[in-house]
Amino acid sequence: MNIPSKILENAVDALSSLPGVGKRSALRYALHLLQSTEMEVEDFIMAIGKLKTDIHYCSRCHCISDTPVCEICSNPKRQQNIICVVENIQDVMAIENTQQYHGLYHVLGGVISPIDGIGINDINIASLIERLKTEEITELILALPTTMEGDTTNFYISKQLQQFPDILVSAIARGIAIGDNLEYADEITLGRSITNRVPFNTIRG
Amino acid sequence: MNIPSKILENAVDALSSLPGVGKRSALRYALHLLQSTEMEVEDFIMAIGKLKTDIHYCSRCHCISDTPVCEICSNPKRQQNIICVVENIQDVMAIENTQQYHGLYHVLGGVISPIDGIGINDINIASLIERLKTEEITELILALPTTMEGDTTNFYISKQLQQFPDILVSAIARGIAIGDNLEYADEITLGRSITNRVPFNTIRG
Repeated sequence: MNIPSKILENAVDALSSLPGVGKRSALRYALHLLQSTEMEVEDFIMAIGKLKTDIHYCSRCHCISDTPVCEICSNPKRQQNIICVVENIQDVMAIENTQQYHGLYHVLGGVISPIDGIGINDINIASLIERLKTEEITELILALPTTMEGDTTNFYISKQLQQFPDILVSAIARGIAIGDNLEYADEITLGRSITNRVPFNTIRG
Repeated sequence: MNIPSKILENAVDALSSLPGVGKRSALRYALHLLQSTEMEVEDFIMAIGKLKTDIHYCSRCHCISDTPVCEICSNPKRQQNIICVVENIQDVMAIENTQQYHGLYHVLGGVISPIDGIGINDINIASLIERLKTEEITELILALPTTMEGDTTNFYISKQLQQFPDILVSAIARGIAIGDNLEYADEITLGRSITNRVPFNTIRG
């Protein structure tokens, strides 16, 4: 693709750095911005710039927040004795959308991944242990991804939890998705869903 | 979708103003930018900001350009006697990509559209007529879209061209796309491609 201007090309390069955006879409976005008014572009830039300069993270659960303590942590209606451990903010938003969970969160901000140079001190594990010491927590739900890194992190956290024998540690249920056909499920998921079968009368809709 | 921060929400709104970007993709972009370094975000913002502040248009053909006269207009190897009239910069880039055209362009920056309040003075028609008066042009190729607005613009331009009887006016060929099946072509295109059939021995590959 021949772009007749270096400035336009730079904007296309910047926009195509966004996840899943190719050169062609980036060009479409850049030309759209080029045809917008100066004020619209300024607003666009400001909204994005503020992401880095103005955004705060909750001092308790490390979720994104405009206040020092986030809305979930400071909501007295939430169950203050359950913490769900997740990898990132997207996971909090996904669980919140289900409206099935009313406890607190703890955002690790990543999972242990030696290959990417992410160790136990690069993610929010120390502050999780600190919370378990100071808050009255009765259950910890592990909702990390089922990858090698997620499993490693689960394992490390469960090791640390041995000092809190009173805290129940659970993990979110994995299995065949609601509405999925068994014949199309992958073997590992189907195998695990049989191994980890649950008593029928304990299932809640 | 519940976004836990007003600042993040503003960024998502800004990004979803891009053409074809929904809330979900915009959130993905915003979280990507949030996880980028401060310098990366600054570079991103600067590249987009420069679109409005630093970009110039060629004084001759109104195409986007970093120099007062664009690379195409100032290239002595291009045929200086043919002008191809297009709606916008994307069209110039599309034709340039074919490498089949070696003349000049004239970017109207839109087409006449009374319903959108775009009249003859809102697009670069006057400067086109001015060019025809001062430059030695022998052919004008109309490559505007086949919409009511494009046809109106074509008609208006062709009227203006009556004062230049020596200039040949042509339009890009419309017909069945190379490789397309006749049975799937729409009636108008197929009908026109029969009405406007060309002598077989004049076809160039």
